Amino acid sequence: MEKILIKQYKKPRLTNSILIGGLPGIGNIGKIAADYIIEKLKMQKLAEIFSQYLPPQVFVTENGMVYLARNTLYYKKIPGKRDLLILVGDFQGTTQEGQYEMSYNVLELLRKFDLSFVYTLGGYSTGKIVETPRVLGAVTDNSILGNLKENGVVFPKGEPGGGIVGSAGILLGLAKELFDIDGACLMGETSGYFADPRGAMEVLKVLSSILGFTIDLAEIEERSKQIEQITGRMQEDLQNKASKKEDLGYFG
Amino acid sequence: MEKILIKQYKKPRLTNSILIGGLPGIGNIGKIAADYIIEKLKMQKLAEIFSQYLPPQVFVTENGMVYLARNTLYYKKIPGKRDLLILVGDFQGTTQEGQYEMSYNVLELLRKFDLSFVYTLGGYSTGKIVETPRVLGAVTDNSILGNLKENGVVFPKGEPGGGIVGSAGILLGLAKELFDIDGACLMGETSGYFADPRGAMEVLKVLSSILGFTIDLAEIEERSKQIEQITGRMQEDLQNKASKKEDLGYFG
Amino acid sequence: MEKILIKQYKKPRLTNSILIGGLPGIGNIGKIAADYIIEKLKMQKLAEIFSQYLPPQVFVTENGMVYLARNTLYYKKIPGKRDLLILVGDFQGTTQEGQYEMSYNVLELLRKFDLSFVYTLGGYSTGKIVETPRVLGAVTDNSILGNLKENGVVFPKGEPGGGIVGSAGILLGLAKELFDIDGACLMGETSGYFADPRGAMEVLKVLSSILGFTIDLAEIEERSKQIEQITGRMQEDLQNKASKKEDLGYFG
Amino acid sequence: MEKILIKQYKKPRLTNSILIGGLPGIGNIGKIAADYIIEKLKMQKLAEIFSQYLPPQVFVTENGMVYLARNTLYYKKIPGKRDLLILVGDFQGTTQEGQYEMSYNVLELLRKFDLSFVYTLGGYSTGKIVETPRVLGAVTDNSILGNLKENGVVFPKGEPGGGIVGSAGILLGLAKELFDIDGACLMGETSGYFADPRGAMEVLKVLSSILGFTIDLAEIEERSKQIEQITGRMQEDLQNKASKKEDLGYFG
Repeated sequence: MEKILIKQYKKPRLTNSILIGGLPGIGNIGKIAADYIIEKLKMQKLAEIFSQYLPPQVFVTENGMVYLARNTLYYKKIPGKRDLLILVGDFQGTTQEGQYEMSYNVLELLRKFDLSFVYTLGGYSTGKIVETPRVLGAVTDNSILGNLKENGVVFPKGEPGGGIVGSAGILLGLAKELFDIDGACLMGETSGYFADPRGAMEVLKVLSSILGFTIDLAEIEERSKQIEQITGRMQEDLQNKASKKEDLGYFG
Repeated sequence: MEKILIKQYKKPRLTNSILIGGLPGIGNIGKIAADYIIEKLKMQKLAEIFSQYLPPQVFVTENGMVYLARNTLYYKKIPGKRDLLILVGDFQGTTQEGQYEMSYNVLELLRKFDLSFVYTLGGYSTGKIVETPRVLGAVTDNSILGNLKENGVVFPKGEPGGGIVGSAGILLGLAKELFDIDGACLMGETSGYFADPRGAMEVLKVLSSILGFTIDLAEIEERSKQIEQITGRMQEDLQNKASKKEDLGYFG
Repeated sequence: MEKILIKQYKKPRLTNSILIGGLPGIGNIGKIAADYIIEKLKMQKLAEIFSQYLPPQVFVTENGMVYLARNTLYYKKIPGKRDLLILVGDFQGTTQEGQYEMSYNVLELLRKFDLSFVYTLGGYSTGKIVETPRVLGAVTDNSILGNLKENGVVFPKGEPGGGIVGSAGILLGLAKELFDIDGACLMGETSGYFADPRGAMEVLKVLSSILGFTIDLAEIEERSKQIEQITGRMQEDLQNKASKKEDLGYFG
Repeated sequence: MEKILIKQYKKPRLTNSILIGGLPGIGNIGKIAADYIIEKLKMQKLAEIFSQYLPPQVFVTENGMVYLARNTLYYKKIPGKRDLLILVGDFQGTTQEGQYEMSYNVLELLRKFDLSFVYTLGGYSTGKIVETPRVLGAVTDNSILGNLKENGVVFPKGEPGGGIVGSAGILLGLAKELFDIDGACLMGETSGYFADPRGAMEVLKVLSSILGFTIDLAEIEERSKQIEQITGRMQEDLQNKASKKEDLGYFG
């Protein structure tokens, strides 16, 4: 079989289109944000991607249906603005080769849809709960910096220190080097310990501001609050335990 | 060499045929059930599959003969009913690529034999000894649910939680997405700690009921009882030890 | 580059030739025995095999020369008898694919030299020092058993239990299934803890007896004795330590 | 996508050219030395190599630019002498196959530039701080030994014991066996615990002496001293702690 199999469902005429990459990753920031946009903007399925670079696994839905692991591309024509494409999925390619091939094949396909810019969404792991997560950026060209900064993206020196590994990095790298397409990575700060709607919401705010579309954030805000309550309680518990331990320490 | 080498021994004319996938897996349920059907229905060898996706290993039989690791397809024409195909073997493909390729090539080959439905047999690991193992199901299409439920297959919500990994899942996923062939997975409950004829027997009961063939279960029932005696004694021993420990606890 | 690159140096006309496979493995039995035959029979280099399936490594000789990892084939025409081919090397293929491909390509090449039988030499790990190592066998066909038994090869039921993994197994398996060439594996018993000339010598005795050539064993016997003295001293030391420990035990 | 993608920027006419391989490795000796030559000799970019054999990773520069992982070739025409080529990069190929393919493709490309000799630079790990690091050598042909020895390279028997693994070894091995091009490996002694400009400087001295070019070593000497001060302090600290521990030992 071919290593990557693309089932294309539609042939829309898109112009000057923008790809938003939101595969699973740190804090699942990218996936949460991308899935949210697809739902709120009622985007349409463009293509599904099956591949040996994804785990040999089917999921089982609540009503017993099997569902083969895949990546999916959605699109939306946006009159008067740049059209939108989104890449989401169950997994990133699981091997080094898979990372390159999956990203390359997506870019190769989307060239037919006048792809002209790539945003990848990801998480930036801080290792601790962040009160007000920042959105860090990285770009393929100097000319992009200004616009992002105006929209609240920060570019602290030396961050992210280890570079960007996986789909959020390689999509940009390949777009730039092999397709001559510019792009930017937007990374929402997150503890990295759980799927984090709070960081995803901050990324969504910045992205909608940059792209000039409006998106109802009420639902993701609600989910963020629920998570914060849970993690808040967990922190309290931990602090209580810690202080008790300290107390005992005096007598031990 | 080619990555997958198929030696085909027969060219039967099969109609509307059903594949039963029974490669080694959790509790070896699928393999035990499939091997049992082959023996009891006196099925014939259709093809052998050698591959780089299987371990570089020969087995040595009791009388010193070496035997290269392989997968094997058997068939049986069943007058007035759908013909039967069975996939068994020493191993599943050992890599992610191997999982996809082995399943894909089997489906590709069996298209020539009018393959029209796929059952995969597997185990569902409970982590403890199960008195009366259920048979869980997962299907590729809603229309299949009713028939399976009538034959005793259960579809509890959220089970199996992690989806189905390996041959039992990917055969169904690829059949559905790439060959437009429907299918179902039948998973017998098992502790998962040993090769489990009891779970395999439950799967056999359900499968023969669905497909409408009769199969003599006396031998597998006997093997199940032997295993239950052994595991029963092991459990007693464990409980005795545990209660002794408890006793000692009072004095310790 | 091609995954396997063969540099062929000679084009001898061989008839009814026999391949002896002696790549590194358990106790290095196969390699020690095969290297010994090459030296004592003054065999000639037929071909060298370089490959991505071998580690990316050069060795450095005593006088500072680098030497790329490889497998090598030697041959010797033996008037009035079956001609001899030997496969030796620095490594076995390091991946599953590499195991299949390296063995397949050797067999494919040697078909041109009228290959008609394959012996693979290996070790059978006992996990303890063996006083008088047996030579175990496994064959591809019943008709081979008698001759091997007459020459001292034993075929104990259920041994080797886990089959034969790696080059010694896959060469036979592929020869049989894909080239219709019979063969046998000769496994010298060894502790498996160190390179073991003693086990290799026993394999050499059996093999020369089967093939009807004479080989001077004085040198390998000498090396065996040296190893036995070292391991003998090590065992004494261990026993002394063990008995001292016991002594201390009474007072501890 | 192709597994290795080469972007060639220039087509210089080079004659009798020498490749210096300096990819990351033990103590980063090779990379430090090669980067230093490129800077000091103001070499020009010949080609960039992107590949699936490199990690799927972009780096982020101080000013927020992403930079896809790559290897790069530089060149310099040197009037009256052999022209110079240098291979540097962010990573070596990360798999066995990648090691072979990356080295092979570099050699294949450079044949067009009259490549006639290969030096690979590397580190030789001693596991402890070395006061005056030696430069060890290994060569593909006896005729090269004399010249290297005259320039201070040492060839101690049995070193390096485990051969040379990775790019520094395989470049030489493939050049010799597949391209009939000779070469030598120069290994600077290093503790192996950190990026080591001191060992790199010794390699540079030897290399410039062999090739007859002059290179200003002031900057790397400065960096070496800084490192030595840091590691010197670290050693003092460790010794102080060790002696204090000893002191305490008397009272404990």
